[in-house]
Amino acid sequence: MMLVDELRVALGAERLIEDPDVQASYAHDEAEWAPAGRPLLVVRARTTEDVRAVVQACLRHRVPLVPRGAGTGLSGGANAVDGCVVLSTEQMTDVVEINPVERLAVVQPGVVNDHLRAAAAQQGLWYPPDPASAPWSTIGGNVATNAGGLCCVKYGVTRDYVLALEVVTGTGELVRLGRRTAKGVAGYDLAGLIVGSEGTLGVVTEITVRLRPARAPEHTVAGYFGSLVAAGEAVRAVGEAGLVPSALELVDRHCLRAVDDWKNMGLSADADVILLGRTDAPGPAGEEEAAAMLACFEQAGATWAARSTDQEEADALFAARRLAYPALERLGPVLTEDVCVPRAAVPEMLGRIEATARRHDVLIANVAHAGDGNLHPLIITPAGDDAARRRAQGAFEQIIADALELGGTVTGEHGVGLLKRGGLAQELAPAVQAMHRAVKQALDPAGILNPGKVFTAAAGSRQTGSLPTDPA
Amino acid sequence: MMLVDELRVALGAERLIEDPDVQASYAHDEAEWAPAGRPLLVVRARTTEDVRAVVQACLRHRVPLVPRGAGTGLSGGANAVDGCVVLSTEQMTDVVEINPVERLAVVQPGVVNDHLRAAAAQQGLWYPPDPASAPWSTIGGNVATNAGGLCCVKYGVTRDYVLALEVVTGTGELVRLGRRTAKGVAGYDLAGLIVGSEGTLGVVTEITVRLRPARAPEHTVAGYFGSLVAAGEAVRAVGEAGLVPSALELVDRHCLRAVDDWKNMGLSADADVILLGRTDAPGPAGEEEAAAMLACFEQAGATWAARSTDQEEADALFAARRLAYPALERLGPVLTEDVCVPRAAVPEMLGRIEATARRHDVLIANVAHAGDGNLHPLIITPAGDDAARRRAQGAFEQIIADALELGGTVTGEHGVGLLKRGGLAQELAPAVQAMHRAVKQALDPAGILNPGKVFTAAAGSRQTGSLPTDPA
Repeated sequence: MMLVDELRVALGAERLIEDPDVQASYAHDEAEWAPAGRPLLVVRARTTEDVRAVVQACLRHRVPLVPRGAGTGLSGGANAVDGCVVLSTEQMTDVVEINPVERLAVVQPGVVNDHLRAAAAQQGLWYPPDPASAPWSTIGGNVATNAGGLCCVKYGVTRDYVLALEVVTGTGELVRLGRRTAKGVAGYDLAGLIVGSEGTLGVVTEITVRLRPARAPEHTVAGYFGSLVAAGEAVRAVGEAGLVPSALELVDRHCLRAVDDWKNMGLSADADVILLGRTDAPGPAGEEEAAAMLACFEQAGATWAARSTDQEEADALFAARRLAYPALERLGPVLTEDVCVPRAAVPEMLGRIEATARRHDVLIANVAHAGDGNLHPLIITPAGDDAARRRAQGAFEQIIADALELGGTVTGEHGVGLLKRGGLAQELAPAVQAMHRAVKQALDPAGILNPGKVFTAAAGSRQTGSLPTDPA
Repeated sequence: MMLVDELRVALGAERLIEDPDVQASYAHDEAEWAPAGRPLLVVRARTTEDVRAVVQACLRHRVPLVPRGAGTGLSGGANAVDGCVVLSTEQMTDVVEINPVERLAVVQPGVVNDHLRAAAAQQGLWYPPDPASAPWSTIGGNVATNAGGLCCVKYGVTRDYVLALEVVTGTGELVRLGRRTAKGVAGYDLAGLIVGSEGTLGVVTEITVRLRPARAPEHTVAGYFGSLVAAGEAVRAVGEAGLVPSALELVDRHCLRAVDDWKNMGLSADADVILLGRTDAPGPAGEEEAAAMLACFEQAGATWAARSTDQEEADALFAARRLAYPALERLGPVLTEDVCVPRAAVPEMLGRIEATARRHDVLIANVAHAGDGNLHPLIITPAGDDAARRRAQGAFEQIIADALELGGTVTGEHGVGLLKRGGLAQELAPAVQAMHRAVKQALDPAGILNPGKVFTAAAGSRQTGSLPTDPA
C-alpha cells in the first residue's frame, strides 16, 4: 500500500492534510529566508500511537519525516523537504499532570508554553523558560530547539527544566528517557541529548518538566541610552557588579519605532536604545538589586534611568519588547540573527553590528537578551529587492564571523535549522562534526528524521536530505 | 614496541607506576564491594597531550583504558579490569581561569572540588556542587559521575554547571565540546552527554564550569525525630509547603553513633534521627523560610526542633553529616546504596528500608540528601562474615526493587559503575539500553574506554570487558 493510503487507514482521514494549499502553510516555520520543500503529506497527530505509526510508516517507505510544533521557529528547522511527511504535534495538547509536591508537570508536545505556565500558576508553581513566542510556541517545539527566553539569564533554558521525555526514535521504538525524581544518574543523559536536537534524533511525544515555586514580584529598572554600545557597557557593568537580574533586555530605536508605528505606544520619541532590567529577589534584597542595577545604568551613561514604580508601565515596556519581532516583520522579510557572545564582549559585538549595517548598507534592528550576551540583530530588506538581499546575506555572515571571533556561538537559542548550518560548520571542529554524525547515525540509522537540518550529511552517509523517496 | 615501553618513552618513566603494590592502590575506588582487576600499567597524566598519547597507545594496542580521578567513587566506576591501563588525572591540578565577569572557571580534571570552591570564593564567586567527598574528590571525577551533594536540592548537580569540556574521545581525537557563553544551541549537547558517562565515552582533560555569585549566609534548622518515617514525613511536609531549602539532610542514629565513637561529638544521646535544613534566601525571606521549615519539622512530630543561632553548632552538625560515611567504614565493609525516589515517597521508602534491614537481618545506617529524595542506606557487615554478606546483597537488591516500584531511580548521584549495572538493566527498557549501546559504539567504536562499566556489552558487540589485550 502507498504511504498516504496506509496512514489514512491507520490514523483516519481527519488526521491527514492532503490539500496542497493547506500543506504549504505547514511546510515552513517563521524563518522567512530559509528554503522549504513540498511535503508529500501533512499529518496532525493526536496520540503517541499516531506518532509511532507515522514514524514506522516513514521507515518502511524510506520517506523523510519533518516534525513540527507551532511553526514559530526562526531558523528553518521545521521546514519541509520535498516528498517528506510533515508531522505536526500541535493537536497533542493535554496537560497530563501538574504535581505540586514533586514540582513537575507532564504535558503533551502541543501544549502552548503560556498554557503550561498558566496551568502551573494555578497551583502556585512556575515554569520559567519564556521565549518571546510563549503565547504561540509549543513545549514540543521548545524542547526541539532548547528554547530560551527572557528569564533565562537567571533561570536557565528549556534543557534545565526537562526531567523526562517520551520519544519515538529513528528506529520506530517508543522509549522513556530521564526520570521523575529530583536527581538521577542512571545511564547517559539521553533526554538531555534529545533536547535541542531539532527533531533529528527522535519525535517527542510527552514531556516531563521541573517547575519552581512562584517567585516574588519583580522590580523593573529602565534605562535610555544614546547608543547601542553605551547600552552594552551597562550590560557589562551589571555583570561586573555580580548582579543576576531576572531579565535584562535590550531594544533599539528601530524596534521601538516599528512597535510605535504598529501599536502607537509612544516609545521611540525619547530613547535610541532601551535597556530593561528586572529583579525578583525577595523583599529588601530585590530593592537593593534594583538600586544596584540602576547605578550600573547610570554609570554607563544612561540619558535617563529609573526604577519603574508603575507595574502597568513596566509591563508595557516588556510587551513592547515581545512585539519587536512581529512589528519588524511588517517592514519586510526579516533575516534573524541569534548569536551569543561572552558578557564582556557585548559592547564590542554591538559596535561591530552597527559597523556591519553601515558597511553592507542594510537596516539592522536589535533586540537582545543582553544579560546573557544573546543578541538578535534583525536584518530587514525591502520585499523583492534582490540586491538588498545579497547585502543582507553578507551582513549575516559577517555577524557570525564576528561572534565567533569574540568567543561566541552562532546560535544562542533559535537552533541551527537551515540558516545556521554554515555557521555550525565554522564553529565546530571537524572531529566534533564527526561526533554529531556518529550520534545521528546511531539513533537514526535510516536517516529519516528531519534530514538536512543542523548539519549536512557526510559523503556516503545515509543521512541525506534526499532519501530515495517512495512516490506513494 | 610494547605498550608500556612506548608510554615510558612518550611520557617519561616518572609518569608511569609499574610497581604492582602501588598499582593495586589505583585499581579500585571506594566501593568496597565491587570487584577490581589487575592493571597492566598505571599512568599519572600531567597534560592533555599525555592523556591523548595514552588513549592513542591503548587504541593501537587494543588495551582497555580505565580513567580515574581521586578514586573516591562509590560504585566501582573507576575499578581496573585485568590488563588495562589505569589513567589517573589526579596530577592535572591547574586552575586555568576564574572569570568573574563571565562567572566561569576553567580547570584541569585533577583539581579537588574544595580547591575550586576556594579559588572561586576568593573572587566572590561560588561553585555549588558539593558532594560529601568535596575535600578529596576531583572535578574530573565529579564530571564523570555527574556528582551531586548537599546543596543540589536547590542548586542542581554537576551537569547543571558544566559549560564546556575538552575531551579525548574513543577514537583518540582531542575535541572541545560546549561553549563559554551563557547560552548556546549549536549542535547536540555532547558536553552534557559526556557528563555522567563514567569515562565510557571519553577522557575529560579540561572543564569549564559556570559559577554563581557568593550567596547570603545560611540559616540552619535542626530537628530530632523518633523514627526514620517521622523524619521522612517532615521532608514531605517541606516539599508540600513549597519550600526550597539550600540543604535538607537526614542522618540516623547508626551514623550519629559511629561519628560519636570516632570523633566524640555527643550527637547520639538525644536523637534517633536528625534532620538538618538550611536556607540561604536573603534577608527576611531567609528568616521566613527557616521559620516555615521549623513549622514543618514540628508538625511532622519532631521530638525537638530549633533554629540554630550558633553558627559553630550548625557547622558541627553538617560536619557530622559529612563524616558519616568514613565513620561507618570503621565498622566494617560498607555496601553503599544511592537510590532516589520522588519526594512524596520518602517516608514510605525509609519505612521499607527499615523493614528490609529487619527481614534480611543486616545493619542499615541511613544518610540522605532527603530534600531531593536521594537516600543512602549503608549496609554494614562484619569483616569476613560471608553469611552476612549474602544477606546484605539481598537487602541491596530489595532496596533497588523498592525504589523502582516507588517511581525512583537506582542511582541518584554515585553512578552505575559496577554495583548498579543490574539495577540499570531493571530500570531502563531494552530499547533504551540499545540506545546506550548505540551511542557507546558511535563514540568509542573500539570499545577501549572503561569497558564493562555502566552496562555490559551486547552479544557480538566489540564493547567487552575483555578486549583481546596486548601482552605488552
